[in-house]
Amino acid sequence: MSKGILTVISGFSGAGKGTLMRKLTRDYPNYALSVSMTTRAPREGEQEGRDYFFVDTDTFQERIRQGQMLEYACYCGNYYGTPGDYVQEQLEAGRDVILEIEIQGALQIRKLMPDCLLLFVTPPNAGELRRRLEGRGTESPEVIARRLARAAEESEGIEAYDYIVINDDLGECVRQIHSMVQNARYTPARQETLINEIRGELNSFSKGAE
Amino acid sequence: MSKGILTVISGFSGAGKGTLMRKLTRDYPNYALSVSMTTRAPREGEQEGRDYFFVDTDTFQERIRQGQMLEYACYCGNYYGTPGDYVQEQLEAGRDVILEIEIQGALQIRKLMPDCLLLFVTPPNAGELRRRLEGRGTESPEVIARRLARAAEESEGIEAYDYIVINDDLGECVRQIHSMVQNARYTPARQETLINEIRGELNSFSKGAE
Repeated sequence: MSKGILTVISGFSGAGKGTLMRKLTRDYPNYALSVSMTTRAPREGEQEGRDYFFVDTDTFQERIRQGQMLEYACYCGNYYGTPGDYVQEQLEAGRDVILEIEIQGALQIRKLMPDCLLLFVTPPNAGELRRRLEGRGTESPEVIARRLARAAEESEGIEAYDYIVINDDLGECVRQIHSMVQNARYTPARQETLINEIRGELNSFSKGAE
Repeated sequence: MSKGILTVISGFSGAGKGTLMRKLTRDYPNYALSVSMTTRAPREGEQEGRDYFFVDTDTFQERIRQGQMLEYACYCGNYYGTPGDYVQEQLEAGRDVILEIEIQGALQIRKLMPDCLLLFVTPPNAGELRRRLEGRGTESPEVIARRLARAAEESEGIEAYDYIVINDDLGECVRQIHSMVQNARYTPARQETLINEIRGELNSFSKGAE
């Protein structure tokens, strides 16, 4: 059983990442969703182990010291991050892991695991992006300004991603993400075993021909 | 209409590159096969413009001087190469161009056109590779030795390719190549127009919000 693929999904607020990931895991059985860890308090309706792993600050900092976080960041006085043990277990078991994080976290993971796949989800055009950032017109100007600032920041990092995923048609988009993950199994880095087997055979073959 | 994708296919002798390319162009209408140019004499049954463009040495060398060859090489006193004009015309018209060449040529093309897709075709395992290199046992030891030397040389360059294509099941393999080409449209380099449009919108949006 070969190791699974780790796919990191980032993208603009309102681009539909959550819906894409739910449909992907429902349509194809081989995906495992990574769950983040945080020190912030659970909100109404949030479940331990489904929405987040909720821990205290000492526990989180100890995990950082032990090198057990794949990536982490601190927002508004709370830690958020990806525990490495669950991701590694799933990958070793041959499952493909999907992880939704922002660009800074995505770049941290790319450094630790160079053969992960980085996907950036965007609405199909700038007008649609604007409508989604503006929301239904019921959000406060501060919320919209925060989304906008974050979108501008994320847009600066797009070139670091392997693929831009244009979320126009949901079904088409999910099929496309799945095919990108499937194809990622066939990079030379992922096919090292076959390549080495072939080089070995060519060597023994040419010795036999001498 | 966006530009087409240039796909360069290399791989071991007997890996089935020709069959794959024929089925790919038959199954999907958007592919154009690039035809090589050579100074060697036509063999029995070979057709001008289908198998090769046959030219004399002066013509070939003049094309090299004019920068009109995407790549070229000299084997056994004959030139072989890829005329750039046909490839460029087809790509501009939005067609995806497929080109079968060896690794040295593939690397020349990657330098000239960094967003081309490089695929390396191999039999599914080393034993199968050996059987295909040995052929039906009717070839002379010299022919087998030449194939083997070439396979060893090509195998050294596999890491330069984007994907290893394992030719086990022909239909599956053709679908896989097609999905690799389709996905190549969504790299950040290929989506520059959308990315710039989005950055422009985010800029104008934040000016409006000031």
